[in-house]
Amino acid sequence: MIVEKPEAEIPGVKMEVVEQEDMKISRVSIETSQAAEQMRKLMGNYITLEVPGLREKNSVLKERVSQVLARELGIITGLGQDENKTVLVVGLGNWNVTPDALGPRVVGDLLVTRHILQLEPETLGQVFRSVAAISPGVLGLTGIETGEIIQGLVEKIRPDLLLVVDALAARSMERLHATIQITDTGIHPGSGVGNRRFAINSSTIGIPVFAMGVPTVVDAVTIAVDAMDKVVASFAASVEKESKFYKVLEDLDAEGKKKLFSEVLTPYNGNLMVAPKDIDVLIEDTARLIAGSINASLHPAIEADDAAKYLH
Amino acid sequence: MIVEKPEAEIPGVKMEVVEQEDMKISRVSIETSQAAEQMRKLMGNYITLEVPGLREKNSVLKERVSQVLARELGIITGLGQDENKTVLVVGLGNWNVTPDALGPRVVGDLLVTRHILQLEPETLGQVFRSVAAISPGVLGLTGIETGEIIQGLVEKIRPDLLLVVDALAARSMERLHATIQITDTGIHPGSGVGNRRFAINSSTIGIPVFAMGVPTVVDAVTIAVDAMDKVVASFAASVEKESKFYKVLEDLDAEGKKKLFSEVLTPYNGNLMVAPKDIDVLIEDTARLIAGSINASLHPAIEADDAAKYLH
Amino acid sequence: MIVEKPEAEIPGVKMEVVEQEDMKISRVSIETSQAAEQMRKLMGNYITLEVPGLREKNSVLKERVSQVLARELGIITGLGQDENKTVLVVGLGNWNVTPDALGPRVVGDLLVTRHILQLEPETLGQVFRSVAAISPGVLGLTGIETGEIIQGLVEKIRPDLLLVVDALAARSMERLHATIQITDTGIHPGSGVGNRRFAINSSTIGIPVFAMGVPTVVDAVTIAVDAMDKVVASFAASVEKESKFYKVLEDLDAEGKKKLFSEVLTPYNGNLMVAPKDIDVLIEDTARLIAGSINASLHPAIEADDAAKYLH
Amino acid sequence: MIVEKPEAEIPGVKMEVVEQEDMKISRVSIETSQAAEQMRKLMGNYITLEVPGLREKNSVLKERVSQVLARELGIITGLGQDENKTVLVVGLGNWNVTPDALGPRVVGDLLVTRHILQLEPETLGQVFRSVAAISPGVLGLTGIETGEIIQGLVEKIRPDLLLVVDALAARSMERLHATIQITDTGIHPGSGVGNRRFAINSSTIGIPVFAMGVPTVVDAVTIAVDAMDKVVASFAASVEKESKFYKVLEDLDAEGKKKLFSEVLTPYNGNLMVAPKDIDVLIEDTARLIAGSINASLHPAIEADDAAKYLH
Repeated sequence: MIVEKPEAEIPGVKMEVVEQEDMKISRVSIETSQAAEQMRKLMGNYITLEVPGLREKNSVLKERVSQVLARELGIITGLGQDENKTVLVVGLGNWNVTPDALGPRVVGDLLVTRHILQLEPETLGQVFRSVAAISPGVLGLTGIETGEIIQGLVEKIRPDLLLVVDALAARSMERLHATIQITDTGIHPGSGVGNRRFAINSSTIGIPVFAMGVPTVVDAVTIAVDAMDKVVASFAASVEKESKFYKVLEDLDAEGKKKLFSEVLTPYNGNLMVAPKDIDVLIEDTARLIAGSINASLHPAIEADDAAKYLH
Repeated sequence: MIVEKPEAEIPGVKMEVVEQEDMKISRVSIETSQAAEQMRKLMGNYITLEVPGLREKNSVLKERVSQVLARELGIITGLGQDENKTVLVVGLGNWNVTPDALGPRVVGDLLVTRHILQLEPETLGQVFRSVAAISPGVLGLTGIETGEIIQGLVEKIRPDLLLVVDALAARSMERLHATIQITDTGIHPGSGVGNRRFAINSSTIGIPVFAMGVPTVVDAVTIAVDAMDKVVASFAASVEKESKFYKVLEDLDAEGKKKLFSEVLTPYNGNLMVAPKDIDVLIEDTARLIAGSINASLHPAIEADDAAKYLH
Repeated sequence: MIVEKPEAEIPGVKMEVVEQEDMKISRVSIETSQAAEQMRKLMGNYITLEVPGLREKNSVLKERVSQVLARELGIITGLGQDENKTVLVVGLGNWNVTPDALGPRVVGDLLVTRHILQLEPETLGQVFRSVAAISPGVLGLTGIETGEIIQGLVEKIRPDLLLVVDALAARSMERLHATIQITDTGIHPGSGVGNRRFAINSSTIGIPVFAMGVPTVVDAVTIAVDAMDKVVASFAASVEKESKFYKVLEDLDAEGKKKLFSEVLTPYNGNLMVAPKDIDVLIEDTARLIAGSINASLHPAIEADDAAKYLH
Repeated sequence: MIVEKPEAEIPGVKMEVVEQEDMKISRVSIETSQAAEQMRKLMGNYITLEVPGLREKNSVLKERVSQVLARELGIITGLGQDENKTVLVVGLGNWNVTPDALGPRVVGDLLVTRHILQLEPETLGQVFRSVAAISPGVLGLTGIETGEIIQGLVEKIRPDLLLVVDALAARSMERLHATIQITDTGIHPGSGVGNRRFAINSSTIGIPVFAMGVPTVVDAVTIAVDAMDKVVASFAASVEKESKFYKVLEDLDAEGKKKLFSEVLTPYNGNLMVAPKDIDVLIEDTARLIAGSINASLHPAIEADDAAKYLH
């Protein structure tokens, strides 16, 4: 295990990287508004696990990832210290669209205990935290912003902490099903597979909000830009670089290229998503992994590898 | 069509029965607390469609039932007069248990418009009412009483009217999938397939609450008592009626029999449900029928038989 | 562990019972046609695990049951000795009806390898047997007898062994989700939740056929008869036993009672099934348990407790 | 309605185009092997409906499309003349992957009659043809080539005609969910959403095979090439065309570009699919439309618009 503090430090940003053979854990803390602006992200803490092997069938690796996730989730939420808190887990997304179904599937695999602790606390003993969970569906199915549903629910049942789980749109192909992100900044509009437009964070919801996400789709523009970049790069050696056309393509910055390709892909652009063909298996596996890590993290008296046993 | 005012009138109860060849519509209005006590029901209005043919594949009949339902729903809710009201439809029940999945399936077939009317009202024109819908799941899945979820949501989005759809436990085999009930008294604890314990009505929710329900299961005790009654009746002619045993069975009132059979069926009793074997097809058909009637009733400018066209 | 050879031996029947604290394993071998007739069963081997605790959430017990099942399955099929055989697993039942969905769900959790061993054998190494699996659906969905579908498939891909998994109709409430049966006599018409009418056994299919089943429903007549028996028994002390009515009920044999109750429950009888209310969770858990045991048994080089790891 | 015979005729190819306001029907008949080679298609008949409006909610249009499909299906299969034939419909694809679930969903909406006609023919009267249907699942789920499953089934139940329904990979974005194809040449390896590798046609199956398909995904390479083409075109006016780089890109033929982009998109290429974000609704709607047209076409005595009524 190598812990590396990346050199090129940005003032106001703390970064820690733990690199292992098959897993890389980054913990980034953006602590000033200037740093936030510079990094184009919100102030807060970001944990990212990069595990290219997640796309393959490797259950030994998956178990290890689940344990790491459980531990990181415990650290970022600070839940380890207080077992009396109630946690509400919300699975965002549309169960009818496979790549967007991650949140609902995670919720389906959670160990929900709030009602048992209220009604027959003696059944469970002292080892379980109070956990409630819901998959409210998406705007197109309910006619209601998911954020509003959560606000109403939080005002009603007053959990101490909200954890949302969502399928994300990746910024590059390499990240698809290969990274898992945890943050205390909540969910941003437009970060998900669906077009969620309502920020779900501690200021909109009123309690600490944590988000776990896995990129499950890339948008078509990203794929096209990626492909173009690689084509341009592959020509770098062989063609005259002073060609204006080459220069035009090479000189465009990320935003420029996105804009260009968005235009040419109109009218399909905003409405197309790119996903792996074995998306069903990937989603099911990832949902189990994440649910397992949440169960282990929220019910700390359970041995991590026993979490599954208490399900059903 | 015969409209009959049943003779044996109870003071404080108004009753109207419309009998057609293959459908019987009863409208009962319980107007005093004494009458309510006497009928062991809450004060309020009850509409019941009895349609034995619903269990069969008869789409002509189903279309007619859907139209009748839409009309009755319009009358009891009084919605016809005001198109600016927002309606929240909640599908109660557990989508993982076929006979309890009626509510969620109805919600899945609804024409949800609230978000469109808010975001791009010009898309729909003037013919659609604002409808939101949700299937929150059951206590065992969420750890939260469904009533609490609804309370939170209603406080948040402030609909004018709540319509809940639920699969009911029938009081007799004859009613299974053969009656459809509408009431303005909401949902009573214990009336559903699952053990819903939280009343959902205008006093718990704070706005007018209407409920539509279809009996999809019978409990095992009911089946056993029904069977026993029929056995006893079938012996009526042939055995000596002064036999104490016969008398004991015959003299037991409904409650007594229920208690007796509940005891003998322990420990399974409370946990067993009886459903038709073709429950999957019955639920799907009934969900479409009810969703069709709700769509036609809530979006009055749509011709009843066109409602389906606007879905998706 | 107590191994008991039941005393009252029937000639031609061998029986072995292993009784443990929370599990009872019976191995019955019916070896002559006279014995078969006397026991009203087909000649062959029957293994029954009785585990009342299966209805509860006890994952330690479930793991142990899974291992026992894997071992018993290995013994009855004799597969341990030959890793080159191909096994076809067929999940009978209707995925749309929860209590009948056991077979399809087991198939969904199986480690299917036949295509990988044919196309890229190097991927898996030597530890995996060739396993194919299908859930063909029921007669009402396909218009084709499941037995015919299996016959066609077996003639085409020529597996060495067929294993069918089915949800069964229990003969008594006590057995619901509490016993698991393995037999080398296949599936009998009418033993399942649906009305399967086509025997699936070695003589209809042409290769050795093994069946695993779990009772998930009871029919309404059984419940009613059970209840009646218990009512009659509870009156035994208190009423005059010479009463003809009492005698009539007491004297009826099992068949007679069934017939009587079938008549009084007409027209619902044949079409009603009785299932536990938490059927969804029971089916999911049982499917995982059985799939785990099949995976461990068919892929013998996998450690029993590792079987799950190779899934996806 | 304009019927146009396209001018640039290829010898051995007959083509008929019916153009309507919102629908274009092409009937292409490739009658010689030379023509087949030239068109890079198999000899046979191809009917294509192009209906851009299918992507929108327009139920009037959908009903019309369903009727046209039913009629075209009747013509190409020649079924109208003989009501005694048995038709087997096979829904190809993976029900767990939304864009690949078209076939299984169509099968779920079919009016299956074979078993009723065999067991209780009097129930249905004379108006129904014998229809069987199955969704066997994909290679990854079963371990068996779907073609083998069909071969086994066809040998067993000997239908007169096979109709397969499949989700297709589109060759361009414009075709996504906007065209419906019918052909008598069956299914070609690699044409579907999944990697089906086994041809399913009259020579592999032994009876006439018809295929209906709708493009539901595009591969990532196609999107990238499409985008690149449009980018290149958009630069055509503004950059020096003698630039080698520009020329390289412009001069590549379709195959060359595909190869180039496949290389740069490796290792994701073959494993990525591009689909509309509202794929769930599109698949459900399209499945109903196609199932409706098949029902109307196979059961000719039913009025086209009544087909839905006989379902369940």
